[in-house]
Amino acid sequence: MGRRTVKRRTRMVRAEGTVRRGDEILVEEPLEIRVDGAPYSTTMRTPGGDFDLAAGFLHSEGVIAEADDLVSVKYCRLNGTEMYNIVEVRTAARVEAPCGRSHLVNSSCGVCGKRTVEEIAGRAVRVPEDGRTVDGSVVAGLAEDMKPGQELFAKTGGAHAAALVDFRGEVLAVREDIGRHNAVDKVVGWALREGALPLSETVLAVTSRASFEIVQKAAFAGVPVVSAVSAPSSMAVSLAEEAGMTLVAFNRGERYNVYTRPERIGGVA
Amino acid sequence: MGRRTVKRRTRMVRAEGTVRRGDEILVEEPLEIRVDGAPYSTTMRTPGGDFDLAAGFLHSEGVIAEADDLVSVKYCRLNGTEMYNIVEVRTAARVEAPCGRSHLVNSSCGVCGKRTVEEIAGRAVRVPEDGRTVDGSVVAGLAEDMKPGQELFAKTGGAHAAALVDFRGEVLAVREDIGRHNAVDKVVGWALREGALPLSETVLAVTSRASFEIVQKAAFAGVPVVSAVSAPSSMAVSLAEEAGMTLVAFNRGERYNVYTRPERIGGVA
Repeated sequence: MGRRTVKRRTRMVRAEGTVRRGDEILVEEPLEIRVDGAPYSTTMRTPGGDFDLAAGFLHSEGVIAEADDLVSVKYCRLNGTEMYNIVEVRTAARVEAPCGRSHLVNSSCGVCGKRTVEEIAGRAVRVPEDGRTVDGSVVAGLAEDMKPGQELFAKTGGAHAAALVDFRGEVLAVREDIGRHNAVDKVVGWALREGALPLSETVLAVTSRASFEIVQKAAFAGVPVVSAVSAPSSMAVSLAEEAGMTLVAFNRGERYNVYTRPERIGGVA
Repeated sequence: MGRRTVKRRTRMVRAEGTVRRGDEILVEEPLEIRVDGAPYSTTMRTPGGDFDLAAGFLHSEGVIAEADDLVSVKYCRLNGTEMYNIVEVRTAARVEAPCGRSHLVNSSCGVCGKRTVEEIAGRAVRVPEDGRTVDGSVVAGLAEDMKPGQELFAKTGGAHAAALVDFRGEVLAVREDIGRHNAVDKVVGWALREGALPLSETVLAVTSRASFEIVQKAAFAGVPVVSAVSAPSSMAVSLAEEAGMTLVAFNRGERYNVYTRPERIGGVA
């Protein structure tokens, strides 16, 4: 795995004067994802969880659907050396070869390469309405519960995180990245490789805003509840509504807003 | 121009109980940009400043370089009705027809469609080192100075903003968008259409983190100083260094960090 932070000499301007100090900066580097030998996409990301990132990204693209679709995920080897910026994914024979994509997408890019909004919305699934609820106290505790997994944020102040937390409040996975979509791809890819999709009775918590693409990735993974620290977008709310998902935003612990399907949160009348 | 916010009934969970209230949500909608009749790109954006967005985006893509490259920018008309989600750009005869791009890029996507990082970094310009400085007090005042232009943020809490502020502290333009790259494209596009490129003696201030793509857009526009409210990425720092730009991040007013070329800020030793 490549380095996740770098140290850099910095002038820190403070009320009491300027201090020269080393500052830890979050690494942003390209990762090329190859599918069955062909370059598929290059994304800007923070190293770490690269195999989960590749799996989650290909899942959100509709290239793979479950763990058995993956034969192997590994770094490319060149003259015996692992290349940490190229991941090679081998898929099962039944997986349809994806159309080439092979352009660089940036660290926060969820819908690149798609031609129309209709095309995207068309793939959205419906989350089952089974009457199961998550207690309001679990929703209120998400930020605190995911904090121990936010090591890069603690060091650099520059990393987004995504977490999967089950309805009983147990944290299943926390992943960090400079790109909020990558962080989501990393937790979804982790779940896919663990054979845990679809993610019923699970909350996807993100430290960012709730955009259309994040709700979409959650919908594809079967996640019934998405919670964001910051604001939702209009299309995120519409998609959550259509997919039957509960969307929480501005989640600051004891205060949060529920935009869709509040009945899935126990204690919110 | 399309709507920029929508109202939505929301359950607001508070310590004292749940309140049902209307909440203003920031609109995220696709904008198709056509160049000389051909679809070039579709980006998710908040309506408003669409012509500036198209101009700034095409500038950062290297399709156009200055105001005279634009013959016209207008909404597409269908049966006499303006289509607010399609902008048609006509370019001067000397502008080379761009290779088709025509995929959907999301609201925070700066480098989509580019094949390699080298290709991107190769276009970066060098900002002139003319010994001119901006006073530290102007840098410290950026957040306050741009606040009056952040109407959508005040309403929704969900909008990023970008501002151009000259070295004397005068605010030239503030634009908002759900995507931080769009906000930058909007101010750069405004400057381009005003014939104000390259933007010497100007600070680009953003309410977001400083990513590679934001520093890159600033470099193309000739901006010598970039200031971000939140963290920088490793590639943003490297590019600022190479392009001879001053990069400020974690700018919280009286406290900020200078990562490159501190000599351009008066009072930072």
